[in-house]
Amino acid sequence: MMGKRNDRNINVKSSKGPNKNQFTIFTRDLRLNKPVPQKVIFDESASLKSVENLVKQSLGIDFKPVLFHNGKKIEDVDEIIKILEQKNGNSFDVRRNVNLAKLKYLRGRQETVTEFPFGVIVVKDEPIKEVRKKIEEVAINFSLQALTDPARAGFRIPSRSADNVGYEEDLKMMLMGNQFIDRTFRSLSSVQSVAQFSEMMRLVYNVLNESIHVTKRDLFYQNVSIFNKDQRISDGLIEDMGAALQVTRNSLNVIASAKGVVLGRLSFTEKGDLIDCSKGVGGRSITPMLDLVDNFESDAEFVLLIEKDAVFNRLAEDRFFDYLPSIIITAKGQPDLATRAFVKRLRNELQIPILGFMDADPYGLEILRVYTIGSKAMSLETSELAVTDIKWLGLLPSDLEKYEIPSDALLDLSEQDIKRCESMLREDFVKARPRWKEELELMLKMDKKAEIQALSSKHLRFMTNEYLPLKIDSNDWI
Amino acid sequence: MMGKRNDRNINVKSSKGPNKNQFTIFTRDLRLNKPVPQKVIFDESASLKSVENLVKQSLGIDFKPVLFHNGKKIEDVDEIIKILEQKNGNSFDVRRNVNLAKLKYLRGRQETVTEFPFGVIVVKDEPIKEVRKKIEEVAINFSLQALTDPARAGFRIPSRSADNVGYEEDLKMMLMGNQFIDRTFRSLSSVQSVAQFSEMMRLVYNVLNESIHVTKRDLFYQNVSIFNKDQRISDGLIEDMGAALQVTRNSLNVIASAKGVVLGRLSFTEKGDLIDCSKGVGGRSITPMLDLVDNFESDAEFVLLIEKDAVFNRLAEDRFFDYLPSIIITAKGQPDLATRAFVKRLRNELQIPILGFMDADPYGLEILRVYTIGSKAMSLETSELAVTDIKWLGLLPSDLEKYEIPSDALLDLSEQDIKRCESMLREDFVKARPRWKEELELMLKMDKKAEIQALSSKHLRFMTNEYLPLKIDSNDWI
Repeated sequence: MMGKRNDRNINVKSSKGPNKNQFTIFTRDLRLNKPVPQKVIFDESASLKSVENLVKQSLGIDFKPVLFHNGKKIEDVDEIIKILEQKNGNSFDVRRNVNLAKLKYLRGRQETVTEFPFGVIVVKDEPIKEVRKKIEEVAINFSLQALTDPARAGFRIPSRSADNVGYEEDLKMMLMGNQFIDRTFRSLSSVQSVAQFSEMMRLVYNVLNESIHVTKRDLFYQNVSIFNKDQRISDGLIEDMGAALQVTRNSLNVIASAKGVVLGRLSFTEKGDLIDCSKGVGGRSITPMLDLVDNFESDAEFVLLIEKDAVFNRLAEDRFFDYLPSIIITAKGQPDLATRAFVKRLRNELQIPILGFMDADPYGLEILRVYTIGSKAMSLETSELAVTDIKWLGLLPSDLEKYEIPSDALLDLSEQDIKRCESMLREDFVKARPRWKEELELMLKMDKKAEIQALSSKHLRFMTNEYLPLKIDSNDWI
Repeated sequence: MMGKRNDRNINVKSSKGPNKNQFTIFTRDLRLNKPVPQKVIFDESASLKSVENLVKQSLGIDFKPVLFHNGKKIEDVDEIIKILEQKNGNSFDVRRNVNLAKLKYLRGRQETVTEFPFGVIVVKDEPIKEVRKKIEEVAINFSLQALTDPARAGFRIPSRSADNVGYEEDLKMMLMGNQFIDRTFRSLSSVQSVAQFSEMMRLVYNVLNESIHVTKRDLFYQNVSIFNKDQRISDGLIEDMGAALQVTRNSLNVIASAKGVVLGRLSFTEKGDLIDCSKGVGGRSITPMLDLVDNFESDAEFVLLIEKDAVFNRLAEDRFFDYLPSIIITAKGQPDLATRAFVKRLRNELQIPILGFMDADPYGLEILRVYTIGSKAMSLETSELAVTDIKWLGLLPSDLEKYEIPSDALLDLSEQDIKRCESMLREDFVKARPRWKEELELMLKMDKKAEIQALSSKHLRFMTNEYLPLKIDSNDWI
């Protein structure tokens, strides 16, 4: 191997020292805002470790460095020499080595809940075939009932009223209780409801037969008059139908607008086409037609769930996922159903941890809560959406002092913020997470909040090259 | 060729007729909601044209049919036989043949405006190197002025007040006039302004040196105190700076949130990585870092600009762009800067027409207006954003009768709608487009509006398989 190296004609000017077997590279410390390249000279006998030591000395850094070239991590000295031969320049970037070992402890399948406690209703994702069978069963039962006991013929539907929704402590999810409503022919208003409900079943049955996806609005337009020209009626019926059949809205092929974007070390198929998320900076738009998505593959160590797309763009441009093997996702604020379901599937199918990266304010924590335990509005579907073991990586209120964020970049809590903090402190999901509770209490005590972008006030790449690596390296998630 | 066919062992049950050289396929008319497969038998001597005639007879349709298999268009009879051999099934989809000839007349480069009329200020996209040079020039001029005539030292900045913005008839764009404001050291408030402006120039200069992209908020956080802890101040300075240097905000590497998604017959590079937009259903999220996007390639005949993502999803699932070679884009409502700039680049670099597909209501037309002539808020950048020759394809108010949209699916105009219509009718950009004016007047006369999804009330695939093909085939854009 050594002999081979001597034969190579190294075409880099700076490599022609008095000793022909010497190599010179320029390294930039990427933690700084204005990195100044430092010259590092080593000879052919050097190992990667000894080169790293030379880099450490020349840059005067106090951590184990890792070399990168064009965003790609250098694995051995031969790679450096190959790059010098390719005339791609002799400039290498230096980053902090991050220990990912502790992340591996977070791996593994999320506990699958098969038994739900008495008094709780959940719906499941089901394949089209199953859903069609269920619709047929309900229709047959209804017809039989209409023949034998017409006064009682109708449907039983879970109540969607607020007092039928609650946080279930053992499962750590926001779930729906088992209060039911009967829709029968007894009263005139119910006659209409039953007719509307039957029509909605027919429409959805057609959609499933066609194997296409529709929106609530599409279904409304299928028969405007029967729904009294009021989409709230048809929307409610779709919810009722999911509840009655115990399937998710997605299983009815009814989709909603999706805002999520994904980028990083992930590939999957969409309707059979391979989608590689590791390319470029724009990211893949997460489709709401999630049943067309399949075959997840990834060598990422974690998923970084990001509140804002400005932060997503910063990490995309820095190719953060080439530095720390990861998948980055943002729903641009409060997450939609598709993004939540997508994250849940990543958690289950890749079995890697999900780390939340939100603003250090009550709104950021509310977003994290929706990903983690679900929302009241969609409590029926929580079991297919909530990722109960999401870790809160940042921005923690305690990070503000720890990472010396300038006080100029912090904002005062508003009265509204204080109320939200106090209200969350009373919630079971916070009580069940003592360290989250501590952070919330600290926020109140400091009377300060901060956006993730406050990290920019240190320098523009502080987040990518210092904050996140240090957080991960020190296992500083809660 | 004929001899060869006889040698083939056709493993499709239905092809074993009394005559061994007969083939049977099943065709479905995709225009219908519940397509019933029809059996079509032909022998080895058949041409594609004769098969199409048999299909026409068996389905009883009145148009030239085109056969598809798994979304791929059939080009000759050999392809059909190959598919039968592959045991992929013997079911073929039938669609209307669409004449795309007239679309080609709309091709060609958009008139590039090099001379702007006196009294109008525009800014341009410029490469980083140019912008840095401009910043250096402004800084040097300012220093010289401070030495020779300190009382007048300062910057000239175009006024962003409403009366300095207007529609320019010849160029068909919303542009900024040449009223200027002087920011000098004369008054105390100006001293602060000049200090803030200098600081912003320094910050942006650093960003350009680093070759990274930042948000307005990032820049604010770089020096919160000099901007009096008020982001409106730093935001205004960024606008001023673009105006003073006569470059777009994007050229300053200052980006904003982007919502756009693109799918279809298009590929490009992002930071050197090849992005193929023809795969899957989710689409590529349009990056706001558009200077990293390059090398557009496409065999599309047109770009379909869609108001809503629900419509985008329907066309994505139907793989509309495999049927009619196209690129589909949505900004999910009012377009952001990045999506507008992306569409402008597609128009210029691919030289294919852009067809707008909006709701038939005043809001839909307002969205189309922003794409077409620009917005008041971003009038300074209009020349890099406005695509003045966008065609309004649909949903035209006149389509409602022409395509027999059920009256149930139409909505009454609100008072607000009527006001918006009347206000738009007074605008120069509508006056300059007599057929747009007619449609607006028709909307007022009918006193009805309609969403694109109203097409679903015909049947769920009416939009993909009937409405859009008929519109394109009959050149029904204005």
